[in-house]
Amino acid sequence: MSDAPAPFIPIDAPGPVCVLGLGLIGGSVLRRVADAGGPAFGYNRGTATVAAATADGYRASDDLSGTLAAAEAAGALVVVATPAPTVPAMFAAIAEHAPTCAVTDVVSVKQEVAAAAATAGLTHRFVGGHPMAGTAESGWAATDPDLFAGAIWVVQTDDGVDPAIWRRVTALAHACGADVVAAASDEHDRAVAAISHLPHVLAATLAQIGGAGGELSLRLGAGSFRDGTRVMATAPDLVRAMCEANAPALLDATSEAIDTLIAARDALRDTGDTGALFRAGHRDRLRFEAITARRVPLAEPVGPDGWEARLRAAGRRGHTWRDVPGQV
Amino acid sequence: MSDAPAPFIPIDAPGPVCVLGLGLIGGSVLRRVADAGGPAFGYNRGTATVAAATADGYRASDDLSGTLAAAEAAGALVVVATPAPTVPAMFAAIAEHAPTCAVTDVVSVKQEVAAAAATAGLTHRFVGGHPMAGTAESGWAATDPDLFAGAIWVVQTDDGVDPAIWRRVTALAHACGADVVAAASDEHDRAVAAISHLPHVLAATLAQIGGAGGELSLRLGAGSFRDGTRVMATAPDLVRAMCEANAPALLDATSEAIDTLIAARDALRDTGDTGALFRAGHRDRLRFEAITARRVPLAEPVGPDGWEARLRAAGRRGHTWRDVPGQV
Repeated sequence: MSDAPAPFIPIDAPGPVCVLGLGLIGGSVLRRVADAGGPAFGYNRGTATVAAATADGYRASDDLSGTLAAAEAAGALVVVATPAPTVPAMFAAIAEHAPTCAVTDVVSVKQEVAAAAATAGLTHRFVGGHPMAGTAESGWAATDPDLFAGAIWVVQTDDGVDPAIWRRVTALAHACGADVVAAASDEHDRAVAAISHLPHVLAATLAQIGGAGGELSLRLGAGSFRDGTRVMATAPDLVRAMCEANAPALLDATSEAIDTLIAARDALRDTGDTGALFRAGHRDRLRFEAITARRVPLAEPVGPDGWEARLRAAGRRGHTWRDVPGQV
Repeated sequence: MSDAPAPFIPIDAPGPVCVLGLGLIGGSVLRRVADAGGPAFGYNRGTATVAAATADGYRASDDLSGTLAAAEAAGALVVVATPAPTVPAMFAAIAEHAPTCAVTDVVSVKQEVAAAAATAGLTHRFVGGHPMAGTAESGWAATDPDLFAGAIWVVQTDDGVDPAIWRRVTALAHACGADVVAAASDEHDRAVAAISHLPHVLAATLAQIGGAGGELSLRLGAGSFRDGTRVMATAPDLVRAMCEANAPALLDATSEAIDTLIAARDALRDTGDTGALFRAGHRDRLRFEAITARRVPLAEPVGPDGWEARLRAAGRRGHTWRDVPGQV
């Protein structure tokens, strides 16, 4: 026996990847993995997207069952990247045409997707994911292999998820240049309701109130209005699909926002004072900046008893996860 | 008599300029005017700022009465650029030490400033202004002579304002690279409550709800949270001073936001539908983008009977104002 430390064996390649849905997120995953030399191919319902992806040199098809048969033959990791309402249909197709493939997704909610995976009988080979990246644009034309560089990619870490598939999903995230945060599905959904879906609700509210002021009001809109409404440039159907899929958590977050605003309005009316509101807002913005600036990857082994809880606890402290030296 | 059109005589120089308060806005005005060769000098209470401005080659002093005496001697346009709560004291000093100077300001509310000008007996020589530019930073170190390039500069156009001083204030705005929009004080205050102050209230709300989710939530914050909370990076006392000075209009805008959010929350709870919210938000964001993209300067003469109402009507249609050829 040597006393030398075990060699660092990174799981740095996700193996073959099959992406269903070649919009902004799915298309960017396909491009990144294929550009890095990994076997990667994709399906999209719309033939225009398939033609565009093919013209750009990527393997894409509008034949869902054929694409999934190829995934099964290759032992690919299937990545579901279609809008939330279509996920159950994708899972049903996977159950039929790719009966042994590992499966993940990139949808912005996790409980509803996990429930759909259960309905399709996929739970034992499914580990969800959510790359926290996006732009106001959408579609193949907006895809970018570097979209995920430095982004957070949440990987579903509910009790009982398969550690081998969990590591394969993290390998995909790392291959895309993202940092991995472990979270349970419900924790994830509460968090994204607050920091991703509520911003869309508030942006829509702000845009409407600016618009109600007419051309003078909109003409005066500058940096704070531009930033505060930016996400409303996105097609409303995409925003709807994302937010409605997380309705229970978004309801709570919206009610919290209403309570906060009522308290702020009453304080302004009764005392003329906005200090409490803005001090708290400033404090939490600085907390956000600080946690974004320090990326402390935490090495936690995947697989031993209780690993899911340990990784989730690290995620709750804001730590990202990385490969553990010596771990296969 | 010639049939040739009257020559274009732009009033392109504001003449000597005296800036009170050398923070982000005031300091940037001083730099821009001085860099363009115009006589310009400034006052700041804090000696560190005066030292920094002087070291950068600008004329700055911490002697308020001496600076105003110099403004009076030079026939300068005095620009009040101190925080809103200190404006009455500045006006009182101007009344005492610069008894004939034209006066403007760059504060983000106009009714309260106009009232303070009246209290100090300055109404006949005061025309307020509001450059719609800013960053999350503050202080002399953040000043930038190009801060106002392409920005909107609202110029107060209440009935009875002096047309010669109005044109001198617009000349300052144009010298700073901004576009001028004419508006009455109350119209301005309602508009900026919606598109400038409410964004700060909503950003503080969003930051707090993200923060309440702890480190996991903040760690997942990406583009929509970053943009939606950006203005909370500003020192909270500056935000307070700005918002509290516009309390009546901000109360109304905040109540509108609460009503909109309650309707959105109830629709999500009762029908699962967010379509109306996001379609309206998308529509008004596109209206904002469209009006920002098309800058149609409207030439309206300043001075003839009813000019204030005609310019305000143009502002309500979102038009900017420019010099009229042949006008002195």
